[in-house]
Amino acid sequence: MKEPEITATDILDALKRIQGILHRTPVMQCITLDKMSGATLYFKCENFQKAGAFKARGAVNAVMCLTEDKLAKGVATHSSGNHAAALAMAAGFRGTEAHIVMPENSSRVKVAAVRNYGGNITFCESNLASREETLLKVLEKTGAVEIHPYNNARIIQGQATAAYELLEDIPELDILLAPVGGGGLLSGTAMAVHHFSQKAIVMAAEPEMASDAYQSFQQKRFIESVDPQTIADGLRTSLGSITYPIISQYVNSIHLATETGIINAMRLIWERMKIIVEPSSAVTLAAILENPVPFHGKKVGIIISGGNVDLSSLPW
Amino acid sequence: MKEPEITATDILDALKRIQGILHRTPVMQCITLDKMSGATLYFKCENFQKAGAFKARGAVNAVMCLTEDKLAKGVATHSSGNHAAALAMAAGFRGTEAHIVMPENSSRVKVAAVRNYGGNITFCESNLASREETLLKVLEKTGAVEIHPYNNARIIQGQATAAYELLEDIPELDILLAPVGGGGLLSGTAMAVHHFSQKAIVMAAEPEMASDAYQSFQQKRFIESVDPQTIADGLRTSLGSITYPIISQYVNSIHLATETGIINAMRLIWERMKIIVEPSSAVTLAAILENPVPFHGKKVGIIISGGNVDLSSLPW
Repeated sequence: MKEPEITATDILDALKRIQGILHRTPVMQCITLDKMSGATLYFKCENFQKAGAFKARGAVNAVMCLTEDKLAKGVATHSSGNHAAALAMAAGFRGTEAHIVMPENSSRVKVAAVRNYGGNITFCESNLASREETLLKVLEKTGAVEIHPYNNARIIQGQATAAYELLEDIPELDILLAPVGGGGLLSGTAMAVHHFSQKAIVMAAEPEMASDAYQSFQQKRFIESVDPQTIADGLRTSLGSITYPIISQYVNSIHLATETGIINAMRLIWERMKIIVEPSSAVTLAAILENPVPFHGKKVGIIISGGNVDLSSLPW
Repeated sequence: MKEPEITATDILDALKRIQGILHRTPVMQCITLDKMSGATLYFKCENFQKAGAFKARGAVNAVMCLTEDKLAKGVATHSSGNHAAALAMAAGFRGTEAHIVMPENSSRVKVAAVRNYGGNITFCESNLASREETLLKVLEKTGAVEIHPYNNARIIQGQATAAYELLEDIPELDILLAPVGGGGLLSGTAMAVHHFSQKAIVMAAEPEMASDAYQSFQQKRFIESVDPQTIADGLRTSLGSITYPIISQYVNSIHLATETGIINAMRLIWERMKIIVEPSSAVTLAAILENPVPFHGKKVGIIISGGNVDLSSLPW
């Protein structure tokens, strides 16, 4: 068996780097959702994290690992979402620039968030080829260091700290459940559980409309995500060369959620827990309510990934 | 000076009664709102309380104080809002019935909440005369004990526990700020501060469109609330014979908020804090942002009163 790329020490070091900079987010429970699911659910509320999502953990860890010298010309990424704002914020903490390539159809709210943290935005067309090409030009022009949103060990180490904290608060968890898009959060969660829990297993939730990770997992070969239309905009990306092997090895199962299920779960969380979560965060609860059997009677830790929503266009 | 009706022991006894039944709600902070207000704001999140509002504190305290004998025929109230659901829940904890008189135009969500807790609803016309008359008939028919939503010492003692907990968490507060409708929460807050803080003063926030408490306070005479149209539906009622004297004596000032200010503040709390609060809860932040001077540089404890909102009809 190949040694995992992410060690226990890596995760503890990442935790030290983010402590005092980011929030230790609370764990919430909800009696109604417990009754509906037949499980005991513990929600790790990364929607309360700085910049509104778990992405701050990876971005801060990655930026903190860079020397002053490396940092001098800034950092760069392409992202339409929470990683963009998180990286702009993290760059600001170190006094350097963040160059963000965003698709021209990115949501108004996400563009505003990047600007709010002082990020330099370059717009591109809304496809992967244009994103990568534009990023290459930006890297060439600026000399900035690229920080990939998920296919980067420092990012995965940072994301792992969310599950680490959750296990510290609720050591008796049977299952940790995270949404999967590019797989940064899921890989980090899997490695945190591997190193720090004797009993928990790791499950993932994915939109049926963007089921590339599920297909890859079932067919034991990497399958790309091709223009998925799910409302869970944080989960449209493909797995990466670092995240796919970790997920293949350390994740127990991947469960799908329908679009209706995602919207209903999002509304349930808003109404019953009184917290704002984005669609990508509701995929986990949707997957439980649509596939309840494996969760029955279990203590389930759920990573609520983020809370950045355009309140002017809600899906109900 | 007349002895206050609500003693320190009353509040500590109420706290003992609700402990283990209700939540000790968290205190949240938000850097963005601190910057916008020029103050340091501590939000006591009663939107996370059982039944979604601080009203659970008073209702549980009042119901717990009743003997089995008194309870046998149930409890009753008229309320279009959070007190109705809270009383139905509290009655359920003691295994007795709650008879709730609700105006026929009460929101779908609030009616569903009362039903969810097993309350027996009698609908009436949407005016105070019809509410009181219908309640009298219900009391006569059932022999239930009336639990008034705010003009009741047990209710005020219960509501006081929110400010008590907030002061326990953040003893250095300069100001406690609560919204004022009937004055139950504000009276309880004022008495908790009177007994348990050496330095804090109490301020209130009220919609400009329902400024009866402000007018009463300024003119030093009781002025009734007449059919106010504010979006803050929890704050439309008049002060009572118990709450008005307490507020006159122990509250430092009342600040008004416009309807636009309330809606903007509500949206700011949703967007920046990622929590769901109802319009009545946003009146406090709106009052600060519209009248910032008295709050500048101060540590301000704010009671977020509740989070029960119809997500299908948002004001933006």
